[in-house]
Amino acid sequence: MRADRARQVADVLRHQIYAGAYDDGLPSEQTLAAEFFVSRNTIREALAVLKNEGLIERGPKVGTHVAVRKFTHGLDALAGLKETFKGYGEVRNEVRAVQELAAPPAVARRLHLTAGAPVVFIERLRYLGELPLSLDLTYLAPDIGAEVVRHPLESNDIFALIEQLSGHRLGSASLALEAIPADPHSAATLQVPDGAPVLMLERLTHLDDGRPVDLEYIRMRGDRITMRGSLMRSDS
Amino acid sequence: MRADRARQVADVLRHQIYAGAYDDGLPSEQTLAAEFFVSRNTIREALAVLKNEGLIERGPKVGTHVAVRKFTHGLDALAGLKETFKGYGEVRNEVRAVQELAAPPAVARRLHLTAGAPVVFIERLRYLGELPLSLDLTYLAPDIGAEVVRHPLESNDIFALIEQLSGHRLGSASLALEAIPADPHSAATLQVPDGAPVLMLERLTHLDDGRPVDLEYIRMRGDRITMRGSLMRSDS
Repeated sequence: MRADRARQVADVLRHQIYAGAYDDGLPSEQTLAAEFFVSRNTIREALAVLKNEGLIERGPKVGTHVAVRKFTHGLDALAGLKETFKGYGEVRNEVRAVQELAAPPAVARRLHLTAGAPVVFIERLRYLGELPLSLDLTYLAPDIGAEVVRHPLESNDIFALIEQLSGHRLGSASLALEAIPADPHSAATLQVPDGAPVLMLERLTHLDDGRPVDLEYIRMRGDRITMRGSLMRSDS
Repeated sequence: MRADRARQVADVLRHQIYAGAYDDGLPSEQTLAAEFFVSRNTIREALAVLKNEGLIERGPKVGTHVAVRKFTHGLDALAGLKETFKGYGEVRNEVRAVQELAAPPAVARRLHLTAGAPVVFIERLRYLGELPLSLDLTYLAPDIGAEVVRHPLESNDIFALIEQLSGHRLGSASLALEAIPADPHSAATLQVPDGAPVLMLERLTHLDDGRPVDLEYIRMRGDRITMRGSLMRSDS
């Protein structure tokens, strides 16, 4: 069935595009058809899928071009966006909120605090140059948070500030990663259409002594970020 | 701003729901407002976000209930869906295609084959009981693939078959994880709305001798699967 073959082709092309294989434009339908051993109609359908995702642009005269660049975030080691993206450009943060909150029970539990204890809440919209990439909601343990917010949040990763101010290295973090639709308000903030797929990361980070200090809810633009890492087979 | 506070509440509630805290129904708006130290209007808005995602159902008489169960897939060790989900129920696979293909150059390169060399292609729709969870496109090295397809693919993980038939353990895999919108054909297959967020996993798996043998493109329903794992801070 052609739609199935088109999906096969689209999936391989997508990762070719990410890898930069087509930065100067995609080959003709005919060339792609020969490479994939499929018909031109199948290629056309595969390109339509990628166009719908916003990944490529097509025009009768101009051919097929890559429309957006995706950026790689790491699943192998715990790192802030600024350290991760230093090869891509300048990460800057629009600080949308900094406040002391009474921790709801579910937040308090994760941070090993009592319900209603003060936590420091920070909301940041994170840009790479002019491009909004992620919306981060952060809850910090009160002692760490009080120090962190005395420093410029526009230009620093919170991870770097925590390490600098606590005298501890970060240790481990537990992650939950999902694909969810952007609600209208988050979509407007991230400058994506309503319902656009968002990579949603919940991450609880501990100091190297095991104490949980930083609970984050991070919405990353699905059209802009790919998480990459590696896994080993466990012994069983 | 209320929409910002509603997002804060929705993010915490979402993970409470996943954790099973509300399997018997969510507390009243009033109770939640007290827990989160926000107004009932903010709670209402947060619940509207979760309802839109399809995570909860609300009715004037029946209260607020969890509408879907999410299943955890691991980011800590390489495992097939059947081994991963054995605590949840029976994974069965609808085998949609099994064929020998000439490898497009991009696929051949990943599997260390020459372009046009034969590869074994398998497409499976994977169910947990009656629920479609993921659509998996798999390219196998020809020698391994030829053995794998001689065995029942409906009831086995390909990982398990590879280990059983190759005499090797699996070693490492490299992953790329994204949130993309389901194209109409994939959406129909996975029984989700057009454009619904899908967790898209590209995974290249090696034998323990380092040889790449299994390239997969896996679409997981965003509303049904959460990937979980942990990360360590690297030394720097």
